[in-house]
Amino acid sequence: MKQYIMEHQQRFIDELQQFLRIPSISALSEHTQDVKKGAIWVSDALRQIGMENVDIIKTNGHPIVYADWLHAEGKPTVLIYGHYDVQPADPIERWETPPFEPQIRDGKLYARGATDDKGQLFLHIKALEALMQQDGKLPINVKFCIEGEEEIASPNLAPFIKQHEEKLRADAVVISDTSFINKEQPAICTSLRGALALEMKVKTAKSDLHSGVYGGGVPNAVHSLVRILDSFHGEDGEITVEGFYEGVPIPTPELKGEVAQIPFDEMETKRSLELDALYGESGFTFLEQTGIRPTLEINGITGGFQGEGVKTIVPCEASAKISCRLVGSQHPDRVFEQIQHHVERFQPVGTKVELQPSIKAQPVSLDSQHEMIQLAADAYEKVYGVRPLFPKEGGSIPVVEVFAKVLQAPVVLMGFGLPTENLHAPNEHFHLENITKGMETICTYYDSIK
Amino acid sequence: MKQYIMEHQQRFIDELQQFLRIPSISALSEHTQDVKKGAIWVSDALRQIGMENVDIIKTNGHPIVYADWLHAEGKPTVLIYGHYDVQPADPIERWETPPFEPQIRDGKLYARGATDDKGQLFLHIKALEALMQQDGKLPINVKFCIEGEEEIASPNLAPFIKQHEEKLRADAVVISDTSFINKEQPAICTSLRGALALEMKVKTAKSDLHSGVYGGGVPNAVHSLVRILDSFHGEDGEITVEGFYEGVPIPTPELKGEVAQIPFDEMETKRSLELDALYGESGFTFLEQTGIRPTLEINGITGGFQGEGVKTIVPCEASAKISCRLVGSQHPDRVFEQIQHHVERFQPVGTKVELQPSIKAQPVSLDSQHEMIQLAADAYEKVYGVRPLFPKEGGSIPVVEVFAKVLQAPVVLMGFGLPTENLHAPNEHFHLENITKGMETICTYYDSIK
Repeated sequence: MKQYIMEHQQRFIDELQQFLRIPSISALSEHTQDVKKGAIWVSDALRQIGMENVDIIKTNGHPIVYADWLHAEGKPTVLIYGHYDVQPADPIERWETPPFEPQIRDGKLYARGATDDKGQLFLHIKALEALMQQDGKLPINVKFCIEGEEEIASPNLAPFIKQHEEKLRADAVVISDTSFINKEQPAICTSLRGALALEMKVKTAKSDLHSGVYGGGVPNAVHSLVRILDSFHGEDGEITVEGFYEGVPIPTPELKGEVAQIPFDEMETKRSLELDALYGESGFTFLEQTGIRPTLEINGITGGFQGEGVKTIVPCEASAKISCRLVGSQHPDRVFEQIQHHVERFQPVGTKVELQPSIKAQPVSLDSQHEMIQLAADAYEKVYGVRPLFPKEGGSIPVVEVFAKVLQAPVVLMGFGLPTENLHAPNEHFHLENITKGMETICTYYDSIK
Repeated sequence: MKQYIMEHQQRFIDELQQFLRIPSISALSEHTQDVKKGAIWVSDALRQIGMENVDIIKTNGHPIVYADWLHAEGKPTVLIYGHYDVQPADPIERWETPPFEPQIRDGKLYARGATDDKGQLFLHIKALEALMQQDGKLPINVKFCIEGEEEIASPNLAPFIKQHEEKLRADAVVISDTSFINKEQPAICTSLRGALALEMKVKTAKSDLHSGVYGGGVPNAVHSLVRILDSFHGEDGEITVEGFYEGVPIPTPELKGEVAQIPFDEMETKRSLELDALYGESGFTFLEQTGIRPTLEINGITGGFQGEGVKTIVPCEASAKISCRLVGSQHPDRVFEQIQHHVERFQPVGTKVELQPSIKAQPVSLDSQHEMIQLAADAYEKVYGVRPLFPKEGGSIPVVEVFAKVLQAPVVLMGFGLPTENLHAPNEHFHLENITKGMETICTYYDSIK
């Protein structure tokens, strides 16, 4: 197996580069056709390795690719989930090479989607090719469910899973869309934060006004927005929205101890991010802040004149994109209501505020002692020589909770990314070393659960 | 005179529309050639009415147009100042008709620059045409100094005035770039606020970060910016920058009384601006807030993801454009330093802040009892039937202070705009009625000072 992988390594990299050339940005409507191309690329690749019943299934948004191979009688069935859509590439000017023209530098493959999630999804496809080429068959039954809307919060996947519960039924759901702790320390994530994303729009007068004539005597939409946004956090980084922390697990010594097992180098983190200081809710470590505590982050803000030069106006409109990460039993619907109440309380004079929720995902917690997860850990240990840790990750994969709940199956989050690979940022990349080792780990895992 | 103006009214409007078609936006470098076209249009118009020594004078930025007619021996000399550049037109989608395709609706001429300042500058050119056509000569000596950088704070005009002090020497400087109190009440402004414009740039990490992986544990550039910006104003709308109010005149009962003479209809202002409430520094009326009090306004803000959909990042950069209006003996340089100190005090952890000043203008106060101003008031009264008031305006015309100081001449701010004409905003317009009446007033004024 290892030999097959090594022999075909260059071809694998070439094929992945083809995949990465497709700008399948699900958030931007001008890329709808590119997203479709992504689905076609995936279905072709699945057909090529011998998968059956390959189907591009239409949804209300971007399509879902399904495929299966179900000839390992009496053996367990694994459902592989991944996504072929990618994040937008802006700020485009900060990429060293164009985001959709993959380039290899220093043993890393640079492109949007390299690690999130095209690269990681690709590992599964090619691991199965290796198994199939070696034995003429697979050691287990396999189903693929690959979507094109993960980066816009999977609006059509949950209904699809519920509707096709039988078709998707499996003994485990395997997802590679997470990261190692660091280059030397693999990880199987067993906890994901939930998410709530929303947009806040603020309006004052009917139009922008001359700041000389009206300045000082009328509400300013940017001032109002800034006042509301600043009111979300207290002096110590805590979130001041009333009721927000309801359902957040109490940070017991046990929970804190579990988090503290994960190695973390503050100096190195600051150095690599070019930050002179980290910042977060006081009384918590960085790993607690990003793993077991909820957040409220402004993702973007816009209002008034942003062009070159000066325009002395009192702006009448401003807006912000906000997202929360949720933990424990926090529910996105309840948090949205709490934010609504907060905004009503802090709404400045002469200001109209509109809130529009978009992404909603519940937090999820997985049992690290489940056999399917322990076997995955064994596979990592065999290939990398190090047993994975089971970290609580700060990100959200909204469908994990849906898979776990609807299919009543363990979800195994076998990540092969690195936290330094700039996912969702300029110069995203994937380490070539983890392409071969990742495929090997996946082959070893599937061989072990037969 | 009135007859000549009435007879040629339609041609005047046509010619003004030609002028308004030139998108001479001084703030945007892609319009540099258009600004030049504006200068050429003005010089042609001046030559056509019989002005002499017409010259387009290069500067480090956009050119200055000079012209004169100095054959009224023994009579006073008036220097007419105006500007042929205009504000940017965005948000372009809020214009009912395109900003550079002038259209007449309801007796109003809609276009960017219609009232600020092409329309008002045009009145002077055509008033002189009328006088010249009627008598074959002018009743007084006239000089024109018309610039193309007023909307970017006249960086090259002050040096030009100082360098050409002799050439520009005059008994009065006449400027039409201000407004009536309302349709029925003309005004000669005798006080202008100064200005300080600056840009604030905030930077945290080296790139945007994934809000799942890093959210809650690293500084967020938008949070930092929002915290700094919100710290500029207290709960009662007061500006909290230490030392900011030094040099601001104490609002004595006399000063308040003077301001209160100006009619102001709060209900009507709220209705026309579609605001349910006005807002400003507490303890002051709207006219005080916008006339004799200093301000600090955010003119625009930008940071993080602003595209369609959702991008869950912790942004690493954000910036804001800020402008202050200054009064009394506040000095833009001192205020800039005070803001720097304030930002240093409130600078959040892990955040780098950069401040870049642009516009700087000192406040100015004129003597309403000067003969040249009183004669202008007489002219308004003759044409409009109402004697002008002498308001303290909130806007800034940076060169007024320079003209007054360098030329040691009274500055007469004969405005013909209306405060409702959307200057610096979408759907800027000019009332046609004030084209003819304005020209008549100017002719009457020049006839009276001979």
